[in-house]
Amino acid sequence: MCFTNFRCFKSKKLKLMNYNETIEGILKGSRKHLAKAISLLESYREDDLLIAQNLLDELMPSTGKSYRIGITGIPGVGKSTFIEAFGEEILKFEPKKKIAVITIDPSSPKRGGSILGDKVRMNSLSRHENVFVRPSPSKGEQGGGALKTYETCLLMEAAGYDIIIIETLGVGQSEYKVGQMVDAFLLLHMPATGDELQGMKRGILELVDLLIINKCDGKLEHEGKLNKKIFEQVFHLSATKKKWSPPVLLASSKEKEGVGVVWQELKKFLLHQKKTRDFQKKRENQALECFNQQLIFKLNKKIREKETKLLSYEAIQEKIKNGLLCPSKAAQIVLENLMKA
Amino acid sequence: MCFTNFRCFKSKKLKLMNYNETIEGILKGSRKHLAKAISLLESYREDDLLIAQNLLDELMPSTGKSYRIGITGIPGVGKSTFIEAFGEEILKFEPKKKIAVITIDPSSPKRGGSILGDKVRMNSLSRHENVFVRPSPSKGEQGGGALKTYETCLLMEAAGYDIIIIETLGVGQSEYKVGQMVDAFLLLHMPATGDELQGMKRGILELVDLLIINKCDGKLEHEGKLNKKIFEQVFHLSATKKKWSPPVLLASSKEKEGVGVVWQELKKFLLHQKKTRDFQKKRENQALECFNQQLIFKLNKKIREKETKLLSYEAIQEKIKNGLLCPSKAAQIVLENLMKA
Repeated sequence: MCFTNFRCFKSKKLKLMNYNETIEGILKGSRKHLAKAISLLESYREDDLLIAQNLLDELMPSTGKSYRIGITGIPGVGKSTFIEAFGEEILKFEPKKKIAVITIDPSSPKRGGSILGDKVRMNSLSRHENVFVRPSPSKGEQGGGALKTYETCLLMEAAGYDIIIIETLGVGQSEYKVGQMVDAFLLLHMPATGDELQGMKRGILELVDLLIINKCDGKLEHEGKLNKKIFEQVFHLSATKKKWSPPVLLASSKEKEGVGVVWQELKKFLLHQKKTRDFQKKRENQALECFNQQLIFKLNKKIREKETKLLSYEAIQEKIKNGLLCPSKAAQIVLENLMKA
Repeated sequence: MCFTNFRCFKSKKLKLMNYNETIEGILKGSRKHLAKAISLLESYREDDLLIAQNLLDELMPSTGKSYRIGITGIPGVGKSTFIEAFGEEILKFEPKKKIAVITIDPSSPKRGGSILGDKVRMNSLSRHENVFVRPSPSKGEQGGGALKTYETCLLMEAAGYDIIIIETLGVGQSEYKVGQMVDAFLLLHMPATGDELQGMKRGILELVDLLIINKCDGKLEHEGKLNKKIFEQVFHLSATKKKWSPPVLLASSKEKEGVGVVWQELKKFLLHQKKTRDFQKKRENQALECFNQQLIFKLNKKIREKETKLLSYEAIQEKIKNGLLCPSKAAQIVLENLMKA
């Protein structure tokens, strides 16, 4: 191994960290070493990323043994509160499980996190010794963000986490990406009257394996039950005997009601997936898709490095957008330029 | 221009065809030259493809002026019959429009085409002087098929076609790909009772801009009307003021009823898209996406050409699938190997 020592990203003093120690630490479940490896992944420095990549590559044989759960929902639907109740419920049923949570960066109100910050977020859950809570590494970065979340997942698996929950914001494109990297995808919905029910993002229901109508307490309970019927009808449209039809569950994270049922239904779904071998197939495709994305990502980087005055990548894309350059010709020019240099 | 003459693909005798003549021919709307250019696109020969690419690149300034319409539906729903009635209806309203249709290859029953073959397919429509019917170029080819359909579209535009209809089979992945290359996506549905209504492909409704309940005649009319209500409710879920809510229309291609309304509603949709500038944005994204796909396609080809015993692309993919190689590391190895050679 060529890297025996590396500088840790984010530490203000140059701190020497032992490479092998980090690997051993992660495999032993050390939070400190896991956190440092994730920080390296998040770095913008080329050398940090290279170390993170090598670390991850050595840890690969110890990955893949968790359940990866995506949870989405629009701001205000109560994702954090639900995840906290959900995590505690899982630990009640299976106290030996280790749970990792990748949350939306809480410091940024734009991304839907609480402006109150880390400290009040999943306060009770995050203090549990078997739980590791970490903000999403994808802040603001275009394209590469979802890839980093995927790799963070792998690192967490190597550190022995059995269940990885990825919180994602129900706006923008993020939930499509997360939906494509998890084993199960949960949508949190808030009870709404017929007209308010409008505006649900098109495409989102297609990704869903379990729909949870949250905040089903007090005044909202009645509406929640009506909503349930509508969603069941929608899912019925795409139901076949072989396929999984997403259950629609009512829950109240506040009253901690119905959250245990979510875990039971989720386990049913995961077992169903394993039985039909869809679980493994999905994972294989996800890994290959991630590889393709990495290929594009790294290729784009190389193209930018090698662009000349004659061949500006931006100019090529502009020409394609305006229909002045045919995409296949453009791809050929770019590749030839890359190989020449 | 380096290619002044080229051998025409598919012709058994080596026939010399003039490059500039082909370009001029296409721009003048010659069916013969258009058909030959499409055949070159479909070729498996490297040299044919290079000519097709150069042809297309020169024709680019004359592309982009059509409406691209995708039509999908499961086998038996009556796609060909509908497209025939639809095309004739358009010509009734706008007799000067030129219509091109890319159909499912009719010679292959597996792909959902009629085994009776070309001759009885869209018999009446295809004889119209303003109509050009061509089977889809994507037969059996993995990955590249949709890209070729996209490029065929561009060639047809250069030949002056105002409306391009792309028929696609409502099974497999094809309609997702076609859904992402057209301006409007129509789903043909057959009236069904509640239980039969099941089994609709998940994800398909998300792509739809217009849903047509076809075969709404005789016994099926009543059920069709009931289905309409259910679909309207589904679309209502994702409706907002700004967004287009897909209309659900009843039609009978046999009785030629309701088909004219489809054209009127489709035009409303296209105008709505142009007004919100979504039309142009979608096209730009489609062109860039096509470029990315071409980049991956050509890159994969180059990787395969340059693979050594040490680096078999298949072996790398197998390792990624089995979680033994981390995707980012794999991408780096592949790119480095490519650049080295």
